[in-house]
Amino acid sequence: MGKLKAIITTSLDGYVAGPDQSEENPLGVGGEELHEWMFPLKIWRESHGDEGGEVTASSPVVEGWSENVGAIIMGRNMFGGGPGPWAEDPWTGWWGDNPPYHVPVFVLTHHEREPLEMEGDTTFHFVTEGIESALDQAREAAGEADISVIGGANAIQQYLAAGLVDQLEISISPRFLGGGERLFDNLDGADIELEQLRAVESVGVTHISYRVDKS
Amino acid sequence: MGKLKAIITTSLDGYVAGPDQSEENPLGVGGEELHEWMFPLKIWRESHGDEGGEVTASSPVVEGWSENVGAIIMGRNMFGGGPGPWAEDPWTGWWGDNPPYHVPVFVLTHHEREPLEMEGDTTFHFVTEGIESALDQAREAAGEADISVIGGANAIQQYLAAGLVDQLEISISPRFLGGGERLFDNLDGADIELEQLRAVESVGVTHISYRVDKS
Repeated sequence: MGKLKAIITTSLDGYVAGPDQSEENPLGVGGEELHEWMFPLKIWRESHGDEGGEVTASSPVVEGWSENVGAIIMGRNMFGGGPGPWAEDPWTGWWGDNPPYHVPVFVLTHHEREPLEMEGDTTFHFVTEGIESALDQAREAAGEADISVIGGANAIQQYLAAGLVDQLEISISPRFLGGGERLFDNLDGADIELEQLRAVESVGVTHISYRVDKS
Repeated sequence: MGKLKAIITTSLDGYVAGPDQSEENPLGVGGEELHEWMFPLKIWRESHGDEGGEVTASSPVVEGWSENVGAIIMGRNMFGGGPGPWAEDPWTGWWGDNPPYHVPVFVLTHHEREPLEMEGDTTFHFVTEGIESALDQAREAAGEADISVIGGANAIQQYLAAGLVDQLEISISPRFLGGGERLFDNLDGADIELEQLRAVESVGVTHISYRVDKS
């Protein structure tokens, strides 16, 4: 059975999104800046259909994030389109016609919706039965491959609190957001043990991997 | 003029001490474990009068923390002895007769007390006039050398919020504490910009240095 990996970038003060999230500013004030280390990378630019870009110590790290990944899980807020029931001509994600995932993506939501097939082998499946159902469906789609939960904070917290995460891939951005969505919150006293697997110094970011032991 | 460096170890979820701090458990539940990466080090053992020990990627990092440091600042809680006025036969610190500092140490407290001279050139000075006065006194003691503020969270927060910290030296321990004293809290919207200087992967810990720009 594949691993469940939680992959996300945080500020040094532990936020994955800044305060005052809105449709115009989906990562809140300062939240977009958390990801500035990624935008110049060749691997990032390629995945968005652009040429050129840099190769840094982050490049193999980012490449590793999609290696052997057969399905992705994300929260409704990360998929976007605002809260509540889906509109008649509903939101299709932030990523245009060809999202950079290329595997089935399971979106945690309270509102039913038919699967949404995009270009490049990305199909969004909307799961209303909670995190365990989403993981079961992702495992079925992924076969023996790994599964990534890539945000937001709330989705990762739910999987961590339930003892379902096998590996954490945290990128720490040199920023203070001072408020917003804190990654390691609402863990309800979950007894989580970590083993540091690797730390990588890169340009304007540090990547750290942890194995998660569920006790 | 020397730099003011804040040097501290946090859990992955951002705590420098766990919940339920007490005299028997000064770092709270799980707090002591944050420092487990340090105890086997030769440089740590030597500073506590013990022989042997390991040399890891942490060794030069820890050595660097006391290089060119002419004075240290700490909070009353880190010095210990409980809150409130000093007893008649007062607490002399956690560190025995020869504390591992060997420079003047300025303790932030609300309660006046005569300086306390220990072996090995460590003298504790008790400062009741607040963080700026402690920094002025530390600068006078340190001359051109640097000054370290080494905890607790509250002392570092006050210096950060006041825009007085030049460099952050954060060691991230692979633990979740789930509660306790959060390092990056109470910053009151201070506009702090960071530049990542260095990240070091070591055994059971990652060390990251940041330059702090005050805007």
